[in-house]
Amino acid sequence: MTKIKDKGDFTLPGEAGYEDLTLELAEKWGADAIRDSDGTVLSDKIISADYDIYSTICLVRGDNEWARANTDKLQQNYLMSDPVIADGDKITIDLLSGFFREQFKVNGHDDPKTWWQVFDRTTGEQFPKDQWDFDRTTNTVTITNVKKWHKYTVNFLAYRIWEAISMYNHITNEWGDREHLMPVDPIYPEAQKFMLSYLQKWLDAHPKTKIVRFTSMFYNFAWFWGDPAHQRFRYADWGSYEMTVSPLAMTLFAKAKGYRMTSEDFVNNGAYCSSHNVPSGRLLEWMDFMHSFVVNFGRQCIDLIHRAGKVAYMFYDDHWVGTEPYSEQFKNMGFDGLIKCVFNAFEARLCAGVQGPVIKELRLHPYLFPTGLKGEPTFQPGGDPARDARKFWANIRRGLLREPVDRIGLGGYLHLVQNFPDFVETIEEITQEFRTLKQCHALGVPYTAPLKVALLTAWGKQRSWVYAGHFIHGMELYEVTEALAGLPVNVTFISFQDILKTGIPENIDVIINAGKAGTAWSGGEHWKNEKIIEKMTEWIAGGGGYIGVGEPSAVQHSSQYFQLAHVLGVDREIGLTLNNIKLTGIISGNKHFILKDMEKNIDFGKDIDNIFALDKSTTVLSQTNGSVQIALNRFGKGHTVYLSGFKFTPENTRLLHRSMFWAADRQKNFGPWTCSNVRTDCAFYPGTKQCVVVNSSDKAEKTQVFDENGHSIDVELKPHGIKIIDV
Amino acid sequence: MTKIKDKGDFTLPGEAGYEDLTLELAEKWGADAIRDSDGTVLSDKIISADYDIYSTICLVRGDNEWARANTDKLQQNYLMSDPVIADGDKITIDLLSGFFREQFKVNGHDDPKTWWQVFDRTTGEQFPKDQWDFDRTTNTVTITNVKKWHKYTVNFLAYRIWEAISMYNHITNEWGDREHLMPVDPIYPEAQKFMLSYLQKWLDAHPKTKIVRFTSMFYNFAWFWGDPAHQRFRYADWGSYEMTVSPLAMTLFAKAKGYRMTSEDFVNNGAYCSSHNVPSGRLLEWMDFMHSFVVNFGRQCIDLIHRAGKVAYMFYDDHWVGTEPYSEQFKNMGFDGLIKCVFNAFEARLCAGVQGPVIKELRLHPYLFPTGLKGEPTFQPGGDPARDARKFWANIRRGLLREPVDRIGLGGYLHLVQNFPDFVETIEEITQEFRTLKQCHALGVPYTAPLKVALLTAWGKQRSWVYAGHFIHGMELYEVTEALAGLPVNVTFISFQDILKTGIPENIDVIINAGKAGTAWSGGEHWKNEKIIEKMTEWIAGGGGYIGVGEPSAVQHSSQYFQLAHVLGVDREIGLTLNNIKLTGIISGNKHFILKDMEKNIDFGKDIDNIFALDKSTTVLSQTNGSVQIALNRFGKGHTVYLSGFKFTPENTRLLHRSMFWAADRQKNFGPWTCSNVRTDCAFYPGTKQCVVVNSSDKAEKTQVFDENGHSIDVELKPHGIKIIDV
Repeated sequence: MTKIKDKGDFTLPGEAGYEDLTLELAEKWGADAIRDSDGTVLSDKIISADYDIYSTICLVRGDNEWARANTDKLQQNYLMSDPVIADGDKITIDLLSGFFREQFKVNGHDDPKTWWQVFDRTTGEQFPKDQWDFDRTTNTVTITNVKKWHKYTVNFLAYRIWEAISMYNHITNEWGDREHLMPVDPIYPEAQKFMLSYLQKWLDAHPKTKIVRFTSMFYNFAWFWGDPAHQRFRYADWGSYEMTVSPLAMTLFAKAKGYRMTSEDFVNNGAYCSSHNVPSGRLLEWMDFMHSFVVNFGRQCIDLIHRAGKVAYMFYDDHWVGTEPYSEQFKNMGFDGLIKCVFNAFEARLCAGVQGPVIKELRLHPYLFPTGLKGEPTFQPGGDPARDARKFWANIRRGLLREPVDRIGLGGYLHLVQNFPDFVETIEEITQEFRTLKQCHALGVPYTAPLKVALLTAWGKQRSWVYAGHFIHGMELYEVTEALAGLPVNVTFISFQDILKTGIPENIDVIINAGKAGTAWSGGEHWKNEKIIEKMTEWIAGGGGYIGVGEPSAVQHSSQYFQLAHVLGVDREIGLTLNNIKLTGIISGNKHFILKDMEKNIDFGKDIDNIFALDKSTTVLSQTNGSVQIALNRFGKGHTVYLSGFKFTPENTRLLHRSMFWAADRQKNFGPWTCSNVRTDCAFYPGTKQCVVVNSSDKAEKTQVFDENGHSIDVELKPHGIKIIDV
Repeated sequence: MTKIKDKGDFTLPGEAGYEDLTLELAEKWGADAIRDSDGTVLSDKIISADYDIYSTICLVRGDNEWARANTDKLQQNYLMSDPVIADGDKITIDLLSGFFREQFKVNGHDDPKTWWQVFDRTTGEQFPKDQWDFDRTTNTVTITNVKKWHKYTVNFLAYRIWEAISMYNHITNEWGDREHLMPVDPIYPEAQKFMLSYLQKWLDAHPKTKIVRFTSMFYNFAWFWGDPAHQRFRYADWGSYEMTVSPLAMTLFAKAKGYRMTSEDFVNNGAYCSSHNVPSGRLLEWMDFMHSFVVNFGRQCIDLIHRAGKVAYMFYDDHWVGTEPYSEQFKNMGFDGLIKCVFNAFEARLCAGVQGPVIKELRLHPYLFPTGLKGEPTFQPGGDPARDARKFWANIRRGLLREPVDRIGLGGYLHLVQNFPDFVETIEEITQEFRTLKQCHALGVPYTAPLKVALLTAWGKQRSWVYAGHFIHGMELYEVTEALAGLPVNVTFISFQDILKTGIPENIDVIINAGKAGTAWSGGEHWKNEKIIEKMTEWIAGGGGYIGVGEPSAVQHSSQYFQLAHVLGVDREIGLTLNNIKLTGIISGNKHFILKDMEKNIDFGKDIDNIFALDKSTTVLSQTNGSVQIALNRFGKGHTVYLSGFKFTPENTRLLHRSMFWAADRQKNFGPWTCSNVRTDCAFYPGTKQCVVVNSSDKAEKTQVFDENGHSIDVELKPHGIKIIDV
């Protein structure tokens, strides 16, 4: 094996005023690039050192002076006012009540009667436009002739007067009276013209910059803040398009598509366009329309960068909305690199899986911020950033065993590390581990079992490897995906539309459908489509494997709740057929193939309850509180597995791994390049003839690694340790 | 206080062949009446002793010879065949597959094309009548031109060839090759004529009988049995009307109401007409129609009995369907007595609460059968009938503190008690306790707090004090009702129809709505009715108390899941608005009035999960797994309490008791005639100036009883003990 290089592939956040620290850590961590961060600058001493310079730019909040002069061109979104119950025949609604008034300002500029809607939320019906009026002086809407005791809300447009990410950074880092940056909407031709000229000036002013890092393009993921006294975060969705809305965009959309979006298309009963909901056809068209706009205008910006002899990277987080890196169009933007901030394996796979010739870089956590995303202490008393870094890395590393990225790096304010020497050491170890893994991948892909699994959701490929944000623990698919991200199987993502259009791809062995009824993850209304039932049933009857988790195929329709109950052999009692007395589950006596490595009782965290077997032919492997937890069934030539929930744990990951092999009827092929100890993972790289073994637990572990011939190798690993074995 | 009589008010099951035992126990237990049971006869020696004779008769299974000669007049019901998935364009369904073929026989007599329906249960649509055919020789239906992979079922009529209760008794008591009795349907005029003549002959043949006990009238509650090898009980509902169906009744109904019922009105996607489901308007009309028939023909039978100088009692269990003792029409039947078999307090209240001049008698459990209702050993090795009797009695007694009945008794086969002397002693104690309680009630009603609570369901008064059967533990309303049955408050039952028609009665202080979304108990679709929301909201705003348990007012509609979320201050996250970030619950610091007597953590058995507070004004008293368990709110002048579940325990009963006082804003009035120890209950009878204190636990308990002036009396009680205090 070639000596692993001990430098490079690492981006360090520099900080003016801490030049020595910056250069010292750049050396220690083997950085080859130094970046600035939101709120920091790089001094000449740093810029002149021998590193690639990597500068962040955010066009939509780049020049607050222009924004102040063009407040009618700020970005907007629809909000649903907090509901008001009528106690007479007239009510007045304070539109921004309950919202963070430093983030939002009511848009009284575009005609409310054209763009807003008032709803009676008791009946769900729109209220007549001639029965309400907006008062510009008080930012209230008065509704007359209301029905007493009904609930009313107003869908209204609000400008955002504080750009969300900047607002978060400002408040988290206590920037005090620093100016609030405002987001400009590039949908306006004047704004586009300004942004391109601003970008050109910026390029001219940054001759040493090699990498221009967009933070990011134009529209942030949705993040509505509430009255901070009691509810700062009201609505947050990493994947949704609420913040792309404006009357101009809606007008352009209507010209392009032949129909108008309404405020309610975005407000959706106050659920907004959350990724958790099954997207409507209208919403998908809106997303497609805005995506095209972002790609086209983004391309103009990137062209300027390339003409300046620099490269363009995109931050696959803030303001990523509209770029859709998993789309066909994305390549047309011309990006040279993608940076994704990650906590775990599936987020690493999200970045690694983007197709195209781009450099992929992971931004590790914790950020060099005083507090973490949930407000917990990090670089401040009570925090343990080294422990956090090791824990996050151990998770991320599982994903990197399977698919590589090109670089890693940090973000934030470097001076914060000064009191945390343990963190400085940990990052040095992580950078070395990363370079080792990268080198393993360099000579070809690792061993992957000949088993292809597809995750079926209402989003499909468009939301590969990610859902609505970080840390949605308890959401079945989130947990399943994290388990899958580190397993040596092929993973793909399909939607119900894919199945309708082109059928189930021939090379898929197992389909997983996981989630709660009605969600985009389980599929909701799609399961009422008889064509879906036909195609899925036929595919399973022909030998396909189906794994249902939680409420797979669930929707209240006809005589079954799980629309694929006939293949799963189980259904859920939701209280309407309590008198249809259920089979007493007969637990299979022997330890089944899929349970072989389970050490303790089944623990899915939280189970969907009241699951019953349809028939004695269903094999029930586990029950809790009279409800089935694990059931197997056969339908035609196909095999199905039902799991009543899923929590990402080493044991459950193994259960899922084995379930896939059982569902694919390939039990005999299970084994090569797996570990005996479920808390360890391994990957074999035929190119280098090396096997990497990692310990994801914070305790020392012993494990056996099995090769293709069933021979085993004993390995001992430190807490969170890694070993490379020459095979 | 008058000396409590030590005889009377007790009905003993006698048994021929055990004359000495019968008369010995009649003396010991103070019986004044001796009865026969299904399968037993009373010998002359018993009949000639000085006891009232009490004979059971069941007209619909009275004469099997007539039934055999008139098999086209057996009772029928619709069944939904087990679903079959089409794997080609033609399928054949074996109609009775999965059903107990000794209970059912396909009715090929009435034209299947007129009375049956075939459904595609994948789409939920009826399949064309010309695409299927019934084969009388094989009892199968062949369906052609089916869609491959769709699910098909047939709604068909089946005769019942073994009467359900007789079948249960036969199998439970191992009657071997004794003839299977068949149920005749009195809807046929010929059957009515025969039954009246049969009854007259029977009356003539039973000169010593004083009390004619119908077991019961004509139609049993629904009880469909499955292939007994793996699923004996498929569907059982104590309150539903499936077994009243026949082509003739449907034809008469169509003439009376102007429209035809369909098979699917009864089959209802295989959920049948379960009491758990919100009844359709059509179903309610069917019930009303059959009720009128039962009342009218029943009256003819009772008239014969009265003319014979005897009295008529009805068993408020088997074959009670159609009698509806809580209806206005019931009095017209002319019954002299009602007998209800009971396990617990609310079933005792069900019997006690029937209006009219009838004698009310409780049939205690355990029955003198080898096994109990769930197949557990009773009068056989492994059983402990004395323990069971004490436990059931302690529960029943709570109900009898509040409302009296006239008599108690036993059923079954007396010889079984011979090996259980402890049981014999226990029954003697129970009979004495019963007579004591009856005497307390004799001089007037016990103290009841000036607080009236209404249980709001889709059934209302029609299903007062009872739901779909015994032992539906975990069903929130079942548990709540059992708690209420022993509390010194006024309880009533209202329906959504009542609210629409006449509004909320003025004297109601608190409304309780408890159950799972979509059920008749919670209310399901009724909560989409804006009039209901208006009336409930107005009533609460005006000062009404509302207690919601589980999923009160829940239905997926508009922007809220709990349609009364605005008054409750909480709603449930069902996975569609996960990104609407919820308030972190702020637990109220002090021990609130409603929690004062809680000794341990809240334990509702099973909580409805993902409950969040809408607003900081909601007072959260308890949370589990990040979900609200108990929340209080104020709306206008009204007070609301939310409980995420309910299990009948002494502590939870007290919590409910206090919650009602808080919801009614009468905290200050809580106290008179309550006990300090939640495992004890008391009732004060002003007429006798006595206070009865009971211990519902199986351990000795000390308690303090508080009188109207807040003075307390110390009381010590044996396990399951009772004390009478002269005040």
